Amino acid sequence: MAATLEFFFDYGSPTTYLADTQIEALAKRSGAKLVYRPMLLGGVFKATGNRSPVEVPAKGVYMGADMARFAKRYGVPMNMNPFFPVNTLPLMRGAVVAQHDGFFAAYQKAMFRAMWVDEKDMNDPAVIGEVVSAAGIDVTSLLKRTGEQDIKDELKATTEEAVNRGAFGAPTFFVGDEMFFGQDRLEFVEAALSG
Amino acid sequence: MAATLEFFFDYGSPTTYLADTQIEALAKRSGAKLVYRPMLLGGVFKATGNRSPVEVPAKGVYMGADMARFAKRYGVPMNMNPFFPVNTLPLMRGAVVAQHDGFFAAYQKAMFRAMWVDEKDMNDPAVIGEVVSAAGIDVTSLLKRTGEQDIKDELKATTEEAVNRGAFGAPTFFVGDEMFFGQDRLEFVEAALSG
Repeated sequence: MAATLEFFFDYGSPTTYLADTQIEALAKRSGAKLVYRPMLLGGVFKATGNRSPVEVPAKGVYMGADMARFAKRYGVPMNMNPFFPVNTLPLMRGAVVAQHDGFFAAYQKAMFRAMWVDEKDMNDPAVIGEVVSAAGIDVTSLLKRTGEQDIKDELKATTEEAVNRGAFGAPTFFVGDEMFFGQDRLEFVEAALSG
Repeated sequence: MAATLEFFFDYGSPTTYLADTQIEALAKRSGAKLVYRPMLLGGVFKATGNRSPVEVPAKGVYMGADMARFAKRYGVPMNMNPFFPVNTLPLMRGAVVAQHDGFFAAYQKAMFRAMWVDEKDMNDPAVIGEVVSAAGIDVTSLLKRTGEQDIKDELKATTEEAVNRGAFGAPTFFVGDEMFFGQDRLEFVEAALSG
C-alpha cells in the first residue's frame, strides 16, 4: 500500500510556496499518495501562541535571503509579496471549494503564483477575482460556495486537526503520525516515505 | 587566501551543540579558517525581540523530534537538558577566557557535552566547577578571570556585533557578510565557502 503524505498549507506562507514547488515531484518519486490539507495559518498561530517569523525584524530580513537561496537551489521564481501579511481566510476557503468542485490543481497554482511570484495584493477581492478568472475558474460560483457553512466548517476543522496533531506553522507535513515542519525538511519527509 | 568562517555560539542552544559537532570537519573540508565567536544568546534575544522556540509549547515538542533526527543523521549523542533554559552568562564569559588563556578546545567540548549529552545542571556553580575540573581546567583561575571587566566587555561587544550584523539567534555563521542561521544550514555554509 502506498504511504500517504499530508501537506498542510496556507497560501500566505512563502516557505509553503517553496514546498509546493517541490512536493508533487517528491510524492511521485516516493510513490506516495499526496493529500492537500488547506488550513488557516492565522488560526494555527492563534491556537499555539506562535507568530510569524517576520514579527522579529532581523529574522524577516534573514528569511528573505534564506528563501532566495532555496528558490535558487530549486530553480523556481520567487518574489516577496509587498502586501504581506495577507488575510488568507477567503483564499483558504476557496481551496476547500476547489477540492470539492474539481479545480484544485488550477486554483493552487494560481494562488501561490499570485502571492509569491506575481506580487498581487490578495487582500483585495477584485484582485482575487482577476487571478481566479485568469485561471479559468468561475468567480461567481466560487464566491457563492466560499460563503457556505460546510466549507467554512471544513477549513476550521482541518485547522483544529493540524493543531491537535502538533502543528504550529506552515508548511507542515505528516507521514502517518510523524510530523515535519518547514520546506527545509523535505529531505526528511522523503526519507520517512521510503523508510 | 583561505576563507574565514565565523561561528557565533552559546552553550545554552541545543541546535548550536549539533552545529558544533559538525563545524570543525566542515571548515577542514572547505580549507576555511574557523573563528569561534562566543556570544550571549539571551542578549541577542533581548536586542532583537526574538525568543526561544520552546516558548511555543508545540514548537518545543517538535524541536525535540527534529533535533533527534539530526543527531541520528550526524551519528552524535544528544539529550535534552532537563534544566534548560540555562543562564549561560558565566559559561560564555568562561569561553572568552578560554580563548585568551589557551584552553578553548577542551572548554568548548566540556561545556557542550555537559549541556547536551550529560544533562548537567549548568545553572549550579558547583556543577560548573566539577565539569571544568574534569576537563583539566583550573577552576579558581577561571572564576577569577571571568570576573574581570575586559572579559565581560568582550562578550558584550561580540554579542552586540552579532546583533548589528543581523543575528537573531544561535547558531549563526558568517562567511564574509553572508549570514546563515541554524545548524540546518551547514550545507549552504559549505557551499558559500567553496563559492
